[in-house]
Amino acid sequence: MRLTVYLAGHVHSDWRNDFRKLARSHDLPIDFVGPMENHDRSDDIGEEILGEQPNPILKDEAASQINNLRTQVLLNKADVVVALFGTSYKQWNTAMDASAAITLGKPLILIRPGELHHALKELSNKAQVVVQTPEQAIEALAYIFATE
Amino acid sequence: MRLTVYLAGHVHSDWRNDFRKLARSHDLPIDFVGPMENHDRSDDIGEEILGEQPNPILKDEAASQINNLRTQVLLNKADVVVALFGTSYKQWNTAMDASAAITLGKPLILIRPGELHHALKELSNKAQVVVQTPEQAIEALAYIFATE
Amino acid sequence: MRLTVYLAGHVHSDWRNDFRKLARSHDLPIDFVGPMENHDRSDDIGEEILGEQPNPILKDEAASQINNLRTQVLLNKADVVVALFGTSYKQWNTAMDASAAITLGKPLILIRPGELHHALKELSNKAQVVVQTPEQAIEALAYIFATE
Amino acid sequence: MRLTVYLAGHVHSDWRNDFRKLARSHDLPIDFVGPMENHDRSDDIGEEILGEQPNPILKDEAASQINNLRTQVLLNKADVVVALFGTSYKQWNTAMDASAAITLGKPLILIRPGELHHALKELSNKAQVVVQTPEQAIEALAYIFATE
Amino acid sequence: MRLTVYLAGHVHSDWRNDFRKLARSHDLPIDFVGPMENHDRSDDIGEEILGEQPNPILKDEAASQINNLRTQVLLNKADVVVALFGTSYKQWNTAMDASAAITLGKPLILIRPGELHHALKELSNKAQVVVQTPEQAIEALAYIFATE
Amino acid sequence: MRLTVYLAGHVHSDWRNDFRKLARSHDLPIDFVGPMENHDRSDDIGEEILGEQPNPILKDEAASQINNLRTQVLLNKADVVVALFGTSYKQWNTAMDASAAITLGKPLILIRPGELHHALKELSNKAQVVVQTPEQAIEALAYIFATE
Amino acid sequence: MRLTVYLAGHVHSDWRNDFRKLARSHDLPIDFVGPMENHDRSDDIGEEILGEQPNPILKDEAASQINNLRTQVLLNKADVVVALFGTSYKQWNTAMDASAAITLGKPLILIRPGELHHALKELSNKAQVVVQTPEQAIEALAYIFATE
Amino acid sequence: MRLTVYLAGHVHSDWRNDFRKLARSHDLPIDFVGPMENHDRSDDIGEEILGEQPNPILKDEAASQINNLRTQVLLNKADVVVALFGTSYKQWNTAMDASAAITLGKPLILIRPGELHHALKELSNKAQVVVQTPEQAIEALAYIFATE
Repeated sequence: MRLTVYLAGHVHSDWRNDFRKLARSHDLPIDFVGPMENHDRSDDIGEEILGEQPNPILKDEAASQINNLRTQVLLNKADVVVALFGTSYKQWNTAMDASAAITLGKPLILIRPGELHHALKELSNKAQVVVQTPEQAIEALAYIFATE
Repeated sequence: MRLTVYLAGHVHSDWRNDFRKLARSHDLPIDFVGPMENHDRSDDIGEEILGEQPNPILKDEAASQINNLRTQVLLNKADVVVALFGTSYKQWNTAMDASAAITLGKPLILIRPGELHHALKELSNKAQVVVQTPEQAIEALAYIFATE
Repeated sequence: MRLTVYLAGHVHSDWRNDFRKLARSHDLPIDFVGPMENHDRSDDIGEEILGEQPNPILKDEAASQINNLRTQVLLNKADVVVALFGTSYKQWNTAMDASAAITLGKPLILIRPGELHHALKELSNKAQVVVQTPEQAIEALAYIFATE
Repeated sequence: MRLTVYLAGHVHSDWRNDFRKLARSHDLPIDFVGPMENHDRSDDIGEEILGEQPNPILKDEAASQINNLRTQVLLNKADVVVALFGTSYKQWNTAMDASAAITLGKPLILIRPGELHHALKELSNKAQVVVQTPEQAIEALAYIFATE
Repeated sequence: MRLTVYLAGHVHSDWRNDFRKLARSHDLPIDFVGPMENHDRSDDIGEEILGEQPNPILKDEAASQINNLRTQVLLNKADVVVALFGTSYKQWNTAMDASAAITLGKPLILIRPGELHHALKELSNKAQVVVQTPEQAIEALAYIFATE
Repeated sequence: MRLTVYLAGHVHSDWRNDFRKLARSHDLPIDFVGPMENHDRSDDIGEEILGEQPNPILKDEAASQINNLRTQVLLNKADVVVALFGTSYKQWNTAMDASAAITLGKPLILIRPGELHHALKELSNKAQVVVQTPEQAIEALAYIFATE
Repeated sequence: MRLTVYLAGHVHSDWRNDFRKLARSHDLPIDFVGPMENHDRSDDIGEEILGEQPNPILKDEAASQINNLRTQVLLNKADVVVALFGTSYKQWNTAMDASAAITLGKPLILIRPGELHHALKELSNKAQVVVQTPEQAIEALAYIFATE
Repeated sequence: MRLTVYLAGHVHSDWRNDFRKLARSHDLPIDFVGPMENHDRSDDIGEEILGEQPNPILKDEAASQINNLRTQVLLNKADVVVALFGTSYKQWNTAMDASAAITLGKPLILIRPGELHHALKELSNKAQVVVQTPEQAIEALAYIFATE
């Protein structure tokens, strides 16, 4: 049995690479999917495909329709969603993906520093698992496969 | 025909009162529902019902289970969800409610100042209607009932 | 028992008025809902609420988000959908509403002149009832309530 | 990860062959499915299986039940639906397939020339991605798999 | 609280009248719905609305599309389905309605004489309640409302 | 707005009467539904309707089909489910009703003494609200309606 | 792409063997599933597993719970359901399986001799394809895979 | 065709090992999944991942969120659920898993000693198959694959 895990969260650092490495070091039979991790391309993909747009809002709208296409397809494939929140950025698309997963009946593992708990309290309460570090999330995923 | 509209968003100002007044002045047959608008009570409701909790995270967890009970019941009743984003606060529970509505097949009207568009671009793309002011959201709701 | 019936189709003539009159003359306990029947307002509603748009495509996009809000809310309320096709206009939104109804498990009554049958053959095959005139659609609706 | 993509649209030209070639030239791990592309056989399949029918409407009804069988099975298998609209033909079955996909929670990529936008504005608003050329649709599909 | 109960079964006798009388004598707050009970009209409704058909199979097809419209609308409204099987007639539409109810998550009360049990054993096993007489079905319905 | 609340739990004491009284004293606009509260009748209802059964297992099977009919109909009507666990009895049907509610997307309020927490830990984790006393459950319900 | 096809219908003859042979001769990539085709074992499976039962109704009930387990698992796996009706036997379980498939959104191919049309008219109207012979059903299945 | 079967029930003995051995001796193409079978680890997994908790209830809550993650993922994968009840332990999580399976439309095979029937009568009535021994459950599973 293999699982597909969607990694929701910001695309401003390398956290998904670290996460995947950690999973490999545990030999977990998991296929990771997620958003485009190249932040500039993610912002520019609308104009890349549809051509220059008249203003920044329309550039954003063009990009978000392509980014949401990717997310919808891959979220539909996922067995579990991991969402990482950090102390920077608005991260409303992370909250959107996390809530979509919950509503679709797919379990959510939420990773966040303790200081964010108050602002995330309603989402934490809906998540299946709440942890503070990627390592803990990997351990929770590993437990799904553990036989002893 | 009456509609039930859930008003998602922060509970730090009187915006829902203004919104309801505006709806009444248009004679719209709408029943508004939403979260507890008394912010302090919303934060304290866990301890109010379950007693004092050992630390702030557990106080939050106690509160969020009661707040989410209210939201889940009322969101299930709603025909439309209006979500207002402002420039203050994290507003991740607003994003959570908005995304839950979309995933449940309930149309979302998103109100946000233009300067927030970039951070909200994925959620805006999923919303049925995106506007800048509560007045515009009321006009969109009024249009559902308009006969000419 | 009352039923809610959504009247899908073009908004270029008075056919819905005739349809409702006919239903009243049969004393049918039906609440009719449907799109904005004032065609100009339907085309202009985006700019009416959101202000002038830079080009016709964006004017259309602004209008369609408000028109689809209305359709989604009212289609969710409907027990039956009646879709009328005529020999003029593209009527792709009529086909869209008709197919959405079928997919949601709501029965579709399709009204079309015989000469359109070839182009409508796949949609006709999915419809619960296919008739040639509004009078026949009313008779089918009346039969739901008939006791003898 | 492989995806299944349903190609909705008219069957009067070779556009699907071009589309598949383009996908192959991008090495996309996609299995394409769609309607019978031999237009004459698609029109005649009812009589081919069920024997001669008494009139053209019944010939059409016989054909559409077999064509819809194929569409329903393959649409259920699809992860994404691409729908191409051109300036000829009624294309109501294309609109029907596109709307069914949306209602089932499968993302739609709509390809249409700009001049059709007004007639397609409601369907465009519901589509996840709207483009003008098959090349753009392929780029959007490629982006789902892109790692940088 | 009122319930809506769909009475599936043949339309060759007065059994629904007796059933409704029995319910009234128990003062049950139930609205009964079901198929057209005038058997001749039920068979002829296709031609009544759509005009004379070229052969008996097409007459049947015309009738069944109108009868199924009625059934689909009313079954969607029902809280409980009662299906009565007797020793005459094929009653495949009764089995179809009963199975549709079960699949939709609506409880089925099956009434059948003991001698039919072997042929009905799979459907009986899926039914929520299996009884031999209409009186027993009424008692089961009454129990839903009973307070002691 | 009124809510329907299903009261799951054992039928060996008067706890539902106390619960309803408490709700009335808070003037809550709630309609309570639930299982037959007369325990003997609940055990005997199978034989009451279907006649004497050959052995205790068949007597139980006859009773449970009627009790489950009642539960399925009323649970389908409920907006919220309250489940009370005590220190006596197996209460597996309470766990069954509670889990059905959660799976159907209806929020669960779980009432249990603290000493039962270990055995109820998985169900508690799935419940929306966990409290120790009926009074606390009433306060949680009251909060849904509270305006300040 | 392979499809799974459930073959519903009576188990009193070899028709499924003929059907599978025909499919093989067309090289169709189809996995066929269906009920136990050994009629005696199908009737006796309850007692085979659960031991002797006190009377024929309980023997039937024991058998049907095991037969329905098989059907539910395999129907959940199926992409298409083929249901064959003949002139003998009650065949209510065939109608039950056919209706369950339709309600689950799985297309139904109905095979029946023309003389049964009247009794099957409501089910025929709900089926996606209605044919008279197994050969025609195979041709319809083959058409799903045909490329020209 | 392979099936995935979830084995719900207590984790205080080796019954799943025996069950899997029995399945292997029948050469059944079944992948078994289920909860962590090491009871101590199952109780301690919350603290193992999240660190020491301030009290036993919070230790349980931490463990149950990880255990429920595993159950939700694996139950979503399962085609059939087998639930074993014994005479020891509360087993409310077994009842929870069993009821979740039923509500999700996955067939349940319930194994219980006859003396537990009264307390399990409502759950037994909802189960697709009720047996007394693991051997009988294996025979029921084997019958799904049997060809004669």
